[in-house]
Amino acid sequence: MPSQELTAIALNGTLKSSSAGSPSSTDRMLDLFEAELKKLNCTMERVRLADFNIKPGVSSDEGSGDQWPDIRRRIVAADIVIAGSPVWMGQPSSVIKRVLERMDAFLSDTDESGRMPSYGKVALVATVGNEDGAHHVSAELYQALNDVGFSLAPNAVGYWVGEAMGSTDFKDLDSIPEGVSTAVHMAAVCAVHMAGLLKQHPFPSVN
Amino acid sequence: MPSQELTAIALNGTLKSSSAGSPSSTDRMLDLFEAELKKLNCTMERVRLADFNIKPGVSSDEGSGDQWPDIRRRIVAADIVIAGSPVWMGQPSSVIKRVLERMDAFLSDTDESGRMPSYGKVALVATVGNEDGAHHVSAELYQALNDVGFSLAPNAVGYWVGEAMGSTDFKDLDSIPEGVSTAVHMAAVCAVHMAGLLKQHPFPSVN
Amino acid sequence: MPSQELTAIALNGTLKSSSAGSPSSTDRMLDLFEAELKKLNCTMERVRLADFNIKPGVSSDEGSGDQWPDIRRRIVAADIVIAGSPVWMGQPSSVIKRVLERMDAFLSDTDESGRMPSYGKVALVATVGNEDGAHHVSAELYQALNDVGFSLAPNAVGYWVGEAMGSTDFKDLDSIPEGVSTAVHMAAVCAVHMAGLLKQHPFPSVN
Amino acid sequence: MPSQELTAIALNGTLKSSSAGSPSSTDRMLDLFEAELKKLNCTMERVRLADFNIKPGVSSDEGSGDQWPDIRRRIVAADIVIAGSPVWMGQPSSVIKRVLERMDAFLSDTDESGRMPSYGKVALVATVGNEDGAHHVSAELYQALNDVGFSLAPNAVGYWVGEAMGSTDFKDLDSIPEGVSTAVHMAAVCAVHMAGLLKQHPFPSVN
Repeated sequence: MPSQELTAIALNGTLKSSSAGSPSSTDRMLDLFEAELKKLNCTMERVRLADFNIKPGVSSDEGSGDQWPDIRRRIVAADIVIAGSPVWMGQPSSVIKRVLERMDAFLSDTDESGRMPSYGKVALVATVGNEDGAHHVSAELYQALNDVGFSLAPNAVGYWVGEAMGSTDFKDLDSIPEGVSTAVHMAAVCAVHMAGLLKQHPFPSVN
Repeated sequence: MPSQELTAIALNGTLKSSSAGSPSSTDRMLDLFEAELKKLNCTMERVRLADFNIKPGVSSDEGSGDQWPDIRRRIVAADIVIAGSPVWMGQPSSVIKRVLERMDAFLSDTDESGRMPSYGKVALVATVGNEDGAHHVSAELYQALNDVGFSLAPNAVGYWVGEAMGSTDFKDLDSIPEGVSTAVHMAAVCAVHMAGLLKQHPFPSVN
Repeated sequence: MPSQELTAIALNGTLKSSSAGSPSSTDRMLDLFEAELKKLNCTMERVRLADFNIKPGVSSDEGSGDQWPDIRRRIVAADIVIAGSPVWMGQPSSVIKRVLERMDAFLSDTDESGRMPSYGKVALVATVGNEDGAHHVSAELYQALNDVGFSLAPNAVGYWVGEAMGSTDFKDLDSIPEGVSTAVHMAAVCAVHMAGLLKQHPFPSVN
Repeated sequence: MPSQELTAIALNGTLKSSSAGSPSSTDRMLDLFEAELKKLNCTMERVRLADFNIKPGVSSDEGSGDQWPDIRRRIVAADIVIAGSPVWMGQPSSVIKRVLERMDAFLSDTDESGRMPSYGKVALVATVGNEDGAHHVSAELYQALNDVGFSLAPNAVGYWVGEAMGSTDFKDLDSIPEGVSTAVHMAAVCAVHMAGLLKQHPFPSVN
């Protein structure tokens, strides 16, 4: 999937808004994805979800003050969507969960061929934590993302967690472990390949 | 991806072996997949896992008496792999879990380009139960299958469960609920489309 | 389990605030718990979480405007805590997830004997959905609640979901299915028994 | 609580049978539990599940050759049950899953007061892996064990996993990390306290 240009959007589900002033470990993992995607001719934009008023709900627009509709529009415009989440208590964050709930509306937002707005888009997961929980975060996000129409290429996650009961933040690691770099590279290569194919050859009608 | 012929293998993770003589609800769900796949020019074979001596372990061959190597060979030969499981306690069965553990060996069984034997294959999930648990079964199976290299097309599951605390078996339903037929149709159309694309355009090197 | 008086607090994690004006299915399940607990000499208060500004974070007080500290105080004053959540996409809601994240602070809020404020309190789960997901909701909530110090009596969940792909709301059922009433009764009896015992006989030092 | 003698049984869900001759990392974690329980006047016996022919199924006796009935008898005789599992693919092993399926039969094996054989018994989880997955293993085991009647005291798990993508076995660590020792100590103290209380004050009728 050669020189086709693709776009990605990364949703950072950290609990901290930018105004907190502290860097986000999830953002550091997204940096890795951005660099790998760029090499593959795919530009990535980022949304720090905690900076926006995304109202609870399962519709595409929850009314006055809801900032989801614009984020939704940008997701629909992208070829690849990266769900980023810190690990808390071994689970995805409430912030990324909210966004998945909002995408539940895709289920009834199909075209004349029965296809959701997410059909043909490829999802990736980026998750980091002090310790344990990345596999479960990816399991929950994969299932929710696939339920609302996203495709998954092999090894669709970039993750890091420390040893059990560890307290080191990913953002404070001196260097990126080689296993992490390799995993992000593989995930990006596969996602870009699949997204390119699906863009050129969209899913047929599912009616 | 038009008239390209594809093959599928369905792994039935029911706890009952064929010798028990009773039909399997998971098998009835697989019947639906087989019919849909056939319309799409994809033939499906079936393995009732409980009929075989699949030894516990995480290697490709656990030695004397282990019947996994032959099943593994058939999986590697297929384009689409369907992981079938009954729901017990809201979770996938121990029988399908064992097979996933055996596929863990794919991680170190890569070609010169770093690709597992499962790269380019598309996974589907088929799961049924008396009540509640299908989403979690698909979450666990999606994550394990994706970890060992399978791709997922949108809505990659066909499932049925009864109302909370229900006791009806899927095999005993008078007729297939329309929602189930629709879901299996969508899952099959998307999986076949993706498997065809990936067969013609394999994932590039991930080294 | 005599006449000792106990108190319970139910956290309703519905996505809808009271101002939406529509009844909550989760609330109907909590009605059942309230009635059973009352028979057992346990009074239950309710917090509709979406009515409050509970800031994202993992501390006990996230500063200006954060309404968590008062809810936290009420949780710490109760003997039994009921985590209520609708099922969305087979998973717990973002609203109840946020509250669990805030309780993560219990981990470092221990007394001189190493015991969290939740030690000796018993947790229950109440969850409802149109379809499938209750077992997984309880699994995630059990783990998170237990990690932050709550105890669980047998069968610690009251749940209802409809048949696969159903669309009926629990609040619209003509009558409560007998299995649901029975489950809530059992859950309440066991939780009250355990909470009474632990109140009289607190956990010893874990240092 | 005091000097009451209690008994525990640990179910080791490693994929390797004893005849493999290699030590089990899960066993090393169980050693820690055994030592802590002994200090609390609780003796622990161990069952290495892979050494037995535990047939797939959800009944208490699956017929000729099934070695579950004897293990079941020993579980029912114990006050505390420890579910031990290695982490594979971020999930519990197929071997421990099988045992949980067999305990599903407890649901219909109630006394005249509606209580399962597991009522009053306290469950613990012991899990280890090269990397990531312990929280999810405990979530799944907590839910399954609680569904079949076990109680959970606070912090009911002892676990260790290495850093993301690590490959070190727990059995090969030079020394036990202090966090692990502390967690096992806390889990044991709380479980013994609760099991003692519930033995002296059994759950009342739930009919």
